[in-house]
Amino acid sequence: MAITIIDIAKMCGVGVTTVSRAINNHPDINEETKAMIMQVIKENHYVPNNSARNLKRAASKTIAVLIKGITNAFFNRMIQVFEKEIQTKKYSFILQRVDENQDEIEVAIELVKEKRLKGIVFLGGNFLHPKEKLDQLTVPFVLSTIGMTEEFDPDEYSYVAVDDYKESYKMVDYLCGLGHKQIAIITAPMDDVSIGKLRYEGYKKALEDHGVELNDRLVLCMKEDIESYSMENGYVVTKELLQSEEEFTAIYAVSDSMAIGACKALVEGGKRVPEDYSVAGFDGVDISFYYNPSITTIRQPVEEIAEETIRILFDMIHKKVTHAHKIFPAELIVRESTRLLT
Amino acid sequence: MAITIIDIAKMCGVGVTTVSRAINNHPDINEETKAMIMQVIKENHYVPNNSARNLKRAASKTIAVLIKGITNAFFNRMIQVFEKEIQTKKYSFILQRVDENQDEIEVAIELVKEKRLKGIVFLGGNFLHPKEKLDQLTVPFVLSTIGMTEEFDPDEYSYVAVDDYKESYKMVDYLCGLGHKQIAIITAPMDDVSIGKLRYEGYKKALEDHGVELNDRLVLCMKEDIESYSMENGYVVTKELLQSEEEFTAIYAVSDSMAIGACKALVEGGKRVPEDYSVAGFDGVDISFYYNPSITTIRQPVEEIAEETIRILFDMIHKKVTHAHKIFPAELIVRESTRLLT
Repeated sequence: MAITIIDIAKMCGVGVTTVSRAINNHPDINEETKAMIMQVIKENHYVPNNSARNLKRAASKTIAVLIKGITNAFFNRMIQVFEKEIQTKKYSFILQRVDENQDEIEVAIELVKEKRLKGIVFLGGNFLHPKEKLDQLTVPFVLSTIGMTEEFDPDEYSYVAVDDYKESYKMVDYLCGLGHKQIAIITAPMDDVSIGKLRYEGYKKALEDHGVELNDRLVLCMKEDIESYSMENGYVVTKELLQSEEEFTAIYAVSDSMAIGACKALVEGGKRVPEDYSVAGFDGVDISFYYNPSITTIRQPVEEIAEETIRILFDMIHKKVTHAHKIFPAELIVRESTRLLT
Repeated sequence: MAITIIDIAKMCGVGVTTVSRAINNHPDINEETKAMIMQVIKENHYVPNNSARNLKRAASKTIAVLIKGITNAFFNRMIQVFEKEIQTKKYSFILQRVDENQDEIEVAIELVKEKRLKGIVFLGGNFLHPKEKLDQLTVPFVLSTIGMTEEFDPDEYSYVAVDDYKESYKMVDYLCGLGHKQIAIITAPMDDVSIGKLRYEGYKKALEDHGVELNDRLVLCMKEDIESYSMENGYVVTKELLQSEEEFTAIYAVSDSMAIGACKALVEGGKRVPEDYSVAGFDGVDISFYYNPSITTIRQPVEEIAEETIRILFDMIHKKVTHAHKIFPAELIVRESTRLLT
């Protein structure tokens, strides 16, 4: 009968786990013990059971990406980059979608237990969790494109993102510069604590700097019963705006998808973009270029953000850093959907 | 010191694996042996190590979805349904992207080994593999929205899809009925053996039935160096068509994304859709409704396809069926991008 790991453990006078650690180069083992075990393995011509070893190895070298809202086109390109970078490092990759109403930390804690993750990327959504809860997350994690509101303590987190406040300001500053004063915004509900809030704050500040008074009736929140930041949400909200008969000359939607929904509602209402209304978005997803008219937007450098996210995560895994942060600049791209008000 | 699974195994005179099988209700264990082990466990007040048990249990109840081309909007809605249905059944869910040039069977075989999968869904792409290779796949699998060309032996596979040939015929028959005779098609390269081939065959047959001779210069293949079925592919191919100065009155792209790329190229070339050219797509993704003009398309019932895929997979896992097939009807949706030729 072939010799087993249990036989080796008995011969060495150690537990099976210890033998497994020796075989798999696990750091949590005394070097002397390891040398002794490897010697016994060699002398007895023991061949570790491959499938078990593969399972163990696979289970212990996995990165999970937790994503809020997988239908968001903005994330698709990022996921491709994550996958490529993670595979280059010979880790396997788990993509886990988290529902809007699910707690991502709880999902992450479960995944760490089940899959023995080495690291986690949190993608999208907001991320305000009590410290006690975060402390239960025993593996490195990086927040990617999650709005960094002032409630965040940078010492607690690693993150990669754009400056949502500043970039949003840039867009609204541009619209004001075109002569628009009645700019409707489609943003997150007012209790949002992430990108929706930051982009809304940028909007308010730009209006203020241009001496434009904030009109509450032009602050439109996406519907909570419709997928957030989606085309459908922009469409439904814009239909209501048109029915309200509130005057406006431009719509700034805080995602390209919502900007496209807004265009559709305007066109269905017999309006032209940009002749009757200017429309602007945020993100710079492909469809913002292909849409007719093409959409003026803020392009986030998605590839660079995704690559940097993985770089930081592996620096943390290899204990080169405890935390790191990077804010990328985004770019205002002027296209056909906005025009100078004359 | 606490009693371990190894102690129990020794007391019972069996291997650790056998004890583990008894604890986890694994079917591969003699009932008498199991009863004996459970008795010893009970008498010794042994509490199985929870984390190990969870790991094992998680690892043995996982379904993987292997997908070709994650950026395809068509798959996003399906993935949401897969995830929901799989979670309802208390299985965990792995989403694995497969590159265009990767062999999905090899990826699947590796995953089965590493994650001890219970079942697999193959999503998209083509699926012609030698029988010897398929036989290495030891878990049930279902092909979902993969083109079922005549090379397929239904007895070898379970699948859920639409009839790509018939639905494509429906679209081209409709365009011919509007008076179009010079209909360009944007489809897969001619060596394709999946949906691209089937949709192209449907196009040819519809032209034939309307007495329209096939014009090879209007048969346009997507570029192999650009993501397949993407907006960019439709855009680049249509730019070339316009430069060729070949006459045509309609473009039928075999995906909505390519139809949108085609519209963009036409509009950039100073043409109007549908006044100058009609454009039609296939799939029925959200953006086909929101695009301006909205795109005439064939709507695939994605939710139903995804639900049926999981239903069949679990019927196979529970050995209620060996193979099952379901073909759903799709729907021609006439929108603004096509017009009657007068």
